[in-house]
Amino acid sequence: MSAFRIGLLGHGTVGAAFEQLLDERAAAIGQLTGRTPEIVGVLTRSRGDFDEIVERSELIVELIGGVEPAHDYVSRALAAGRHVVTANKQLLSRHGEELWSLARERGVLLGFEAAVAGVIPVVRVLRESLAGAHIERIHGIVNGTTNFILSEMTRTGCDYAEALEQAQRLGFAEADPTDDVGGADAAAKMAILARLAFGVPVHIDDVRSEGITAITSDDIAYAREFGLSLKLVGTAERLAEGISVRVHPAFLYGGHPLASVHGAFNAVTVESAAITEITMSGPGAGGSQTASAVLGDIVAAIGGAQTLAAPLPPMAIVEDVSSAFYLHLQVDDQPGVLAQVAQLLGDAGASIKSVVQQGLGERAQLMMVTHPLAHSRLAVALEQIARLEHVRSPPRAIAVINEEFV
Amino acid sequence: MSAFRIGLLGHGTVGAAFEQLLDERAAAIGQLTGRTPEIVGVLTRSRGDFDEIVERSELIVELIGGVEPAHDYVSRALAAGRHVVTANKQLLSRHGEELWSLARERGVLLGFEAAVAGVIPVVRVLRESLAGAHIERIHGIVNGTTNFILSEMTRTGCDYAEALEQAQRLGFAEADPTDDVGGADAAAKMAILARLAFGVPVHIDDVRSEGITAITSDDIAYAREFGLSLKLVGTAERLAEGISVRVHPAFLYGGHPLASVHGAFNAVTVESAAITEITMSGPGAGGSQTASAVLGDIVAAIGGAQTLAAPLPPMAIVEDVSSAFYLHLQVDDQPGVLAQVAQLLGDAGASIKSVVQQGLGERAQLMMVTHPLAHSRLAVALEQIARLEHVRSPPRAIAVINEEFV
Repeated sequence: MSAFRIGLLGHGTVGAAFEQLLDERAAAIGQLTGRTPEIVGVLTRSRGDFDEIVERSELIVELIGGVEPAHDYVSRALAAGRHVVTANKQLLSRHGEELWSLARERGVLLGFEAAVAGVIPVVRVLRESLAGAHIERIHGIVNGTTNFILSEMTRTGCDYAEALEQAQRLGFAEADPTDDVGGADAAAKMAILARLAFGVPVHIDDVRSEGITAITSDDIAYAREFGLSLKLVGTAERLAEGISVRVHPAFLYGGHPLASVHGAFNAVTVESAAITEITMSGPGAGGSQTASAVLGDIVAAIGGAQTLAAPLPPMAIVEDVSSAFYLHLQVDDQPGVLAQVAQLLGDAGASIKSVVQQGLGERAQLMMVTHPLAHSRLAVALEQIARLEHVRSPPRAIAVINEEFV
Repeated sequence: MSAFRIGLLGHGTVGAAFEQLLDERAAAIGQLTGRTPEIVGVLTRSRGDFDEIVERSELIVELIGGVEPAHDYVSRALAAGRHVVTANKQLLSRHGEELWSLARERGVLLGFEAAVAGVIPVVRVLRESLAGAHIERIHGIVNGTTNFILSEMTRTGCDYAEALEQAQRLGFAEADPTDDVGGADAAAKMAILARLAFGVPVHIDDVRSEGITAITSDDIAYAREFGLSLKLVGTAERLAEGISVRVHPAFLYGGHPLASVHGAFNAVTVESAAITEITMSGPGAGGSQTASAVLGDIVAAIGGAQTLAAPLPPMAIVEDVSSAFYLHLQVDDQPGVLAQVAQLLGDAGASIKSVVQQGLGERAQLMMVTHPLAHSRLAVALEQIARLEHVRSPPRAIAVINEEFV
């Protein structure tokens, strides 16, 4: 049986887990495919020569992360006619089209299952199983760190800082968590998922994103009164005027398939008329999960899998989408405050679905859920509400997903 | 752009849905793959000639169902060098190896995503994404009819007959529901999933199966006291001595990923050390869902997908597996009954995890959950318990899955 020669770029947590998993599974893959994968060279900061590794390899596994020098290495490997498998979502959300196009030209595979949603094979499912489907919408919890933090805040009632510290202690958050908690990691993954779902180019700059750093334990506690749970949700959806891709904290009703996804898990729900919906869930990317996804792509490369097809013409990116909202206001408990707020919302076209008022005197809280309205119209109403005499701080507004699940 | 010529066998609910979906999606598939799929002939009982359709087609879609004449048609189409896509689980769980082998010989695809778990792309995920993984266990809710019936019994407290009638009224059960409620449909699907997960031949006769016809509303009501939910669960697992594939009603703890799968949905959980677990869920096979899965296989065939690899040597089928059990006994409320029962279970090696006693005098109920023990040892204990003076009817025993989730 002939060896299938792999060059490995990067040897951190994921690289080491990949090398170990390959050792364990090489023989079985050989039995299955007729080729036994074997690492013929490793590049790290301190060892290995890139050109020499490419020369000896049929496939390059890129696990360096970051945009450069990963971009340079991947380009050169593809140009040299080598298959590439990468877990690098930042790279693909910026330079994906250029790299996929290069892979097509050279007739090699650029595999990237490991770049999105950990161990959940959502890339393959979108590319292949749902290739015949007209996908309308994807909702995803695609960042395990933020889902762990929000789950911990919900479970224990602790605040954001404490939950982050706990996540770092348990290895679910990095020492510098900015990319995760700020939403950039989820935005990159949603750009890739949108590319797959709609077949059009999507750049990370097309994704509007907001992280979880401003979430308070109050948001979570109050929302319980409405039977909602708070997640950092990525959405890619097809609208009449184009597509929208965004990441922001959102409340989900209990019946939504993503509402019960807790801890450092990822999950993706794909909606289409023909299939209704599919939900896939599993642990977010740890070392061995990412390694397993990389190995799946290697098996595909051995089997002759083809790289992503050329994109369709770009679609307009819609900025002003509609959704239901949860609003939280601190108000003086004076007669007429609720009426004033309701009036301003009504003028903006927002009808109120439910409302709760709590507390007395200066410490009263007004919480409500609206029916769907355009974000721009809500913004106008919020500005006016903030100027009301008895409203004591700028209102909090958080989107609510799938109002129809109530 | 050249046409990709498809012959369609069968034009019932699924066949009609397939033809409609193909109409809608043909142009987009053409854009994606360079070939536009087109139906060039349809065979039903009253129209079409099989040989002529095969002659004109590159790919045959078999949606007749049942073992014959589907077996004959599929064999002949493959032998003539045509790709085949089928939704026929009964056929594949009986003649799969022979047909896959024929497809390999002729270098064509025998696609069967539509045969298992409706719209959930579990076949592709097991074949491809997890090809590098060492799968330890699959649990599946793979029959939507029975899951609907059990959900309905749980939700409304109604009995089996009423829930079945409701399922038939809503189109979730056929006029003759035997294959679904008796477990044969789920058994065929689990045979196919086990074949994919472990890479060894698995025949439907290797699958021990039990349906839901004996489930009473009491089983469901009493189990609530333990925080359990009742599902018809298919299990395929790798054991020290071989593999076990089985289908039977089972109680799941609330934390299990399948516990929250309600109504006519399917879901499959795949466990492996490297990935921990992946769960995929979606609606069970309706016409348009099955059609969507068939279309995915057609796209794969156009893309040059290969048929399933040859199996590894067969593994032993383990008959006597272990699990935790829920037991329900009707006893006279006499001092010492519980002690006698506990003694007999203890002699069989079963330790009791929790116990509830309800009622008084002649109508007392004893319900307990055991720690895991071999089914054979439980059977011995149950026989002895049934002979105790104060036990008033044969004890009910239902397996409990993933005790560790408690």
